[in-house]
Amino acid sequence: MLTVEELTKGLTPEQIEAAAETEGVSPETIRKEVEDGTIVVPCNPAHRGLKPVAIGKGLRTKVSASIGIDSWDGTVAGELEKLRVALDAGTHAIMDLSIAGDMDGARRAILEASPVPVGTLPMYQTIAEAAQKHGSSLAMTPEQMLEIIERQAADGVDFLALHCATTMATVERAKAEGRIDPLVSYGGSHLVGWMIHHKKENPLYENYDRILEIAKKYGVTLSLADGMRPGCLADSLGGAQVQELVILGELVARARNAGVQIMIKGPGHMPLNHVKDTITLQKSLCKGAPYFVFGPLLTDLGVGYDHINAAIGGALSSWHGADFLCYVTPAEHIGNPDASQVRQGVIAARVAAHAGDLARGLPEAVQWDLDMSNARRDLKWKEQIRLSIDPQHAQHIRLTRNDGDIETCAMCGKFCAMKIIADHMHFKRHSC
Amino acid sequence: MLTVEELTKGLTPEQIEAAAETEGVSPETIRKEVEDGTIVVPCNPAHRGLKPVAIGKGLRTKVSASIGIDSWDGTVAGELEKLRVALDAGTHAIMDLSIAGDMDGARRAILEASPVPVGTLPMYQTIAEAAQKHGSSLAMTPEQMLEIIERQAADGVDFLALHCATTMATVERAKAEGRIDPLVSYGGSHLVGWMIHHKKENPLYENYDRILEIAKKYGVTLSLADGMRPGCLADSLGGAQVQELVILGELVARARNAGVQIMIKGPGHMPLNHVKDTITLQKSLCKGAPYFVFGPLLTDLGVGYDHINAAIGGALSSWHGADFLCYVTPAEHIGNPDASQVRQGVIAARVAAHAGDLARGLPEAVQWDLDMSNARRDLKWKEQIRLSIDPQHAQHIRLTRNDGDIETCAMCGKFCAMKIIADHMHFKRHSC
Repeated sequence: MLTVEELTKGLTPEQIEAAAETEGVSPETIRKEVEDGTIVVPCNPAHRGLKPVAIGKGLRTKVSASIGIDSWDGTVAGELEKLRVALDAGTHAIMDLSIAGDMDGARRAILEASPVPVGTLPMYQTIAEAAQKHGSSLAMTPEQMLEIIERQAADGVDFLALHCATTMATVERAKAEGRIDPLVSYGGSHLVGWMIHHKKENPLYENYDRILEIAKKYGVTLSLADGMRPGCLADSLGGAQVQELVILGELVARARNAGVQIMIKGPGHMPLNHVKDTITLQKSLCKGAPYFVFGPLLTDLGVGYDHINAAIGGALSSWHGADFLCYVTPAEHIGNPDASQVRQGVIAARVAAHAGDLARGLPEAVQWDLDMSNARRDLKWKEQIRLSIDPQHAQHIRLTRNDGDIETCAMCGKFCAMKIIADHMHFKRHSC
Repeated sequence: MLTVEELTKGLTPEQIEAAAETEGVSPETIRKEVEDGTIVVPCNPAHRGLKPVAIGKGLRTKVSASIGIDSWDGTVAGELEKLRVALDAGTHAIMDLSIAGDMDGARRAILEASPVPVGTLPMYQTIAEAAQKHGSSLAMTPEQMLEIIERQAADGVDFLALHCATTMATVERAKAEGRIDPLVSYGGSHLVGWMIHHKKENPLYENYDRILEIAKKYGVTLSLADGMRPGCLADSLGGAQVQELVILGELVARARNAGVQIMIKGPGHMPLNHVKDTITLQKSLCKGAPYFVFGPLLTDLGVGYDHINAAIGGALSSWHGADFLCYVTPAEHIGNPDASQVRQGVIAARVAAHAGDLARGLPEAVQWDLDMSNARRDLKWKEQIRLSIDPQHAQHIRLTRNDGDIETCAMCGKFCAMKIIADHMHFKRHSC
C-alpha cells in the first residue's frame, strides 16, 4: 500500500495536519483513509498556493462551484469574478468547465487565483478545439483527448472529471431500455456521439492505463463522471446508470492499484426515495470511494429554483454518506449563471452540506449550531449574524427588514417571546 | 359518525367533487377520510368565495403562507399586496398572523379577497389588545381569549391555530429538562408567561369544550399548535415537546367526538434524522390527524436562507407523511418578510411539497415531472417554461441569461448534448 505522500505526490506532514485540524480529526485518520481510498486530498504539486482540502469518510461535506467560459466572447476576467464570488461564499473547490474562448488562459488564471482545489472536465476543451478546427466534435481523436488531459494536468489541475466508464455496453443498455432522456451529460453525449459515429469503444476506457499514468505522473486525483447519469426522475436507477456504476467500481480498483487517488461523480435527477439507495449502491460498488454528487435534483420542475431543489437532494445525500456536493445554481437548465447566481448556488449547497453534517452528528457542526441557538436565545444579534452561513446576506436582510438597529430584536417588537420567558419563567439567565 | 356535511357545516357535493377532482381522487375518498379525520377541508360557511381545499392522507402536500400586520403603523393594503403575491405564487392557504394595527380590518379584508382557506392565531390579537389597553399581555383574561376566538370564527376564518395543549405539566417538563431555548412560540410564550404569573392552568386547555362549541357553531377547523415546539436542533424530540404531543392526541380525540375537524401543527427545528420519526410519532399519537409542519428547519445557521433550509425539511416531511407545509421566508429569524420574500417562501415550499409528492408516487405529480422531462428532451422551451413551478421567474432567468430567443437552446450553444444524441443515437425522434 502506498503512503499518503506517494499517493499525493508530496503532501507535507504540515499540510496533512492543517487539513486534519480543519476537520477536527487526527492526522492519522486522514493518512489511513487516504491510503484506504475513502478520503481523497486533490492536490496537484503544480497548483501553487493551494491549501489542500480533504474530502471523504467522516469529514465535513464539501461544496464545489462550477464556473467557466461559456461562449466564444466570454472573458477570463468574467470567470475570475465568479471565482472571487464563489470563494467569498465559502466554496471548498472550484470546477473550471470552460467550453469556449480562451480555455487555457481561463484555467491557468483560475489555478493562479484559487487557494482551493480546482477541477476540470478535459472533454469540454477537446470538443471545443475539435469543433473550432474541424467544425465538429466528431473530429476528436483519442490522442487529442489524452493530450488535453495531460495539458490540463501539467497546468496544475487538482482533479480531472472523465467519462471513462461510459462504454458501448452502457450505451446499448440505455438504447434497449428506452430512457426518457437518453443522455444529458454534455461531455458524455459528445463522447458517445463520437463512439457511435466511429463505431469504436470509449477511448477513455480503452486508454485508462495511460490516463492513470498521467494522473500518477502529475499527482492528479481522478473524478470519474457518469455519462449515463439520469436526466430526469423517471430514468433514475435504470440499467444504463447502474451498469456504468459497476464499471466505475472496476476503475476505482484499477486506480488504487496504480496509486492514483480517485472519487466518483454521480447523478443527477432522482426522487427523494432513491437518494439513500443510490449512495449505498455507489459506496458498495466503488469500495467506499468518495462520492461527488451533482445536486441531486428531486423534481424536474424546479426551473429557476434548482439551487433549492439541489439543496434538498444535497442535504439528504450528505446525511447518507455523500462527501462532496457539486452546486446547482438558479440558472440550471435555462442558462449559465451570473456571479449572483454563483453565490446563491454555493450558499444553498453549504446549507445542504451542513444539514447533512448535523444529521451525521459531526461534533464541530453540532457545536456551531448550538452556538447559534444560544446566541438566539440570548438575543445576541451581532453574534447571530456572525454565526450565520452567510453573515453579509443575513445582515442585509436584518437591516432592510428592520429599523437598522442591530442590537434590538425586531421580530415581535415589544411582544418578545424570548423576553417574556426570560422575565416570567426564570428557566435561564438571559442577557436581554 | 358524522357525515362530511355535518363536519364541515355544509360543504356541498359539488364542492367535494371539485376538491376530489383537483386531487385526482374520488369524492368517496374525500368523504371517507374526512369522516375518519385523516383529511380536513377547512371551510367556514361565512368565508364567501372560498374554493375549499382538502388537506391530508394521500393528497398533494399543501402550502400555507403567513402574512399579517406586524407593527402599529402597518397597513391592511400592505398585507393585501402580500396576499396577492402569495396567491400568484400558488399558495394553497393563507394565515393572517397580524399582531398589531387594524387586526380586525386586516382579517376581514383578507377573508374577502382570498379564495383559499384562511387561518388565524387568535392569541396574537388577544396579546395585542391586552397590551394596547392595559400595557401587558398579563392583563389577558380567559373570557377575552374566548371572545376573540369567537370573533375571528364569526368573521369566516377557516382554521384557527390554538395552543390548547401547552399545559403547566409541559411547562414544568421544559423547566426540568433544561432546554437550550425554553420557548420560541410567540403566542405560546405569552400564554405560558400568563399561566406562570397568574398560577393558573392554560385557559385554552381548561376551556377546550367551549372552544369545540365555537368551532362546531361556526364550522371552523382547529389547527392545534405546539407551544413547546423546539426552537433549535438540540431541543428536538425532548420531553416537553413529546408530552405536549401526547396531550394533542387527547385533544384530537375530543374534537372528533365533538364533530369538529382538526389538524395538528408541528415543529420547528430538528436534525434531518428526526424528521421521519417526528412525523411517525405525530401520526401515531394524533390518530392520523393531518400534520401541518412549520419548516422544519434542519440547521440553525441558515439565516437569510431559511426558505431553503425549510424546503429541505418540508420535502422530507412531505415524503414521510406531513400534509401541509407552513412556509418559511428568507426573512425568518431576522425580520418580517416583504412581498418578494413572501413569493420566495411560497415557491420554496411548493418545490418541497412537490418533491415529497413525487417520492410518495402521487400519479399527478409524477406525470407533471414526466411532461417536463419530455419537453426538456425535445427542447420545447415554451413548454418547459409553462411546466415550471414558477413560469414567470423561469422565463425571466432564461431571457436575462441568454440572448432572449425563447426557442433556441442556449445551454451549450451549438454543442448541444441533446442534439448530438438525436442526430447520432437515434434513440428517439426529437423535435429539434
